Amino acid sequence: MKASSAIKIVEQHLTKERFEHTLRVRDTALELARLYQEDEETVELAAIFHDYAKYRPLDEMKRWINNSYLPKDLLDYHHELWHGPVGALLIEREHGITDSNIKSAIHCHTTGKANMNKVDMILFVADYIEPGRNFAGLEEVREQAKHDLVKSAWLVSRNTINHLMSKNNTIYPDSFYAYNDLSRKVNGGIQ
Amino acid sequence: MKASSAIKIVEQHLTKERFEHTLRVRDTALELARLYQEDEETVELAAIFHDYAKYRPLDEMKRWINNSYLPKDLLDYHHELWHGPVGALLIEREHGITDSNIKSAIHCHTTGKANMNKVDMILFVADYIEPGRNFAGLEEVREQAKHDLVKSAWLVSRNTINHLMSKNNTIYPDSFYAYNDLSRKVNGGIQ
Repeated sequence: MKASSAIKIVEQHLTKERFEHTLRVRDTALELARLYQEDEETVELAAIFHDYAKYRPLDEMKRWINNSYLPKDLLDYHHELWHGPVGALLIEREHGITDSNIKSAIHCHTTGKANMNKVDMILFVADYIEPGRNFAGLEEVREQAKHDLVKSAWLVSRNTINHLMSKNNTIYPDSFYAYNDLSRKVNGGIQ
Repeated sequence: MKASSAIKIVEQHLTKERFEHTLRVRDTALELARLYQEDEETVELAAIFHDYAKYRPLDEMKRWINNSYLPKDLLDYHHELWHGPVGALLIEREHGITDSNIKSAIHCHTTGKANMNKVDMILFVADYIEPGRNFAGLEEVREQAKHDLVKSAWLVSRNTINHLMSKNNTIYPDSFYAYNDLSRKVNGGIQ
């Protein structure tokens, strides 16, 4: 699918604000793709579609989780975590996108996971640092993203867990698996 | 086994400082057992033996993990996590203690786990708040332990993960399972 067609599709599914966020994530992700020599077409489609399912009704998302390959334990965690996995499922069902790199990056863009590949990390980081974002600790991640993709993904993972724990939220296991895996890669060996 | 015999045994295996910590954990755990109406004999033996394996050589602990029912993934994490599970194994092998409550509490006293029972939580909390400890956030846990065992265990779990993450350490999965499980019990429902 061409990026221009993808953009027309997602625009129908998002609020104006969320659509503008999506375009900024797309731009940031493309910068990272060039910097880290990843396939631009793959990264662009993943970025454009990353919030595709964001505004689906909760009971529809629940139904997709219950009636697909998606992990059922998502239902035991905050519904904010559902739109990534459900989006990855729906771009295939509704638009025939089967590319496993695109689907994986969308699936895990909120939580991360163990053994993220470059496309996964680019979307995970771009969604966090796009120029419309503004929160504590962001500048460090933006700076790091220019030099070290793995280290910046590790910062995103660590900051996200810290933020959720400061709000007393539960943490989806993939978030921890991402943190542990990236910690080992960044800090080396057993810590 | 009588508490007095247990004390004589562990004294041989610990440094003087660690032995004194053990006696303070025993006293604190007994206070919590009375407060929360748990069996004092069980709690006392768990507390006395909780650091039993603390000074075993690393290669011996590694051997026990490799050649027993203990989870092998312990070896992928910091060796500081090994003495609980190995201690639970060794008090049975070396002293015939098979009580599953005692073994479970010792096994998980460093990390916690999902679905801790009252003995597990009493040891987990007592080890953290015994009067010889002194670090940020401790008074809140000590205060909470007088009123709500689950909430105080949740604070121990949260503070411990925060502390490890501030040092960029990896986090053993049982620590997260404990945090998520206790968060749900304390804060209710899906967060």
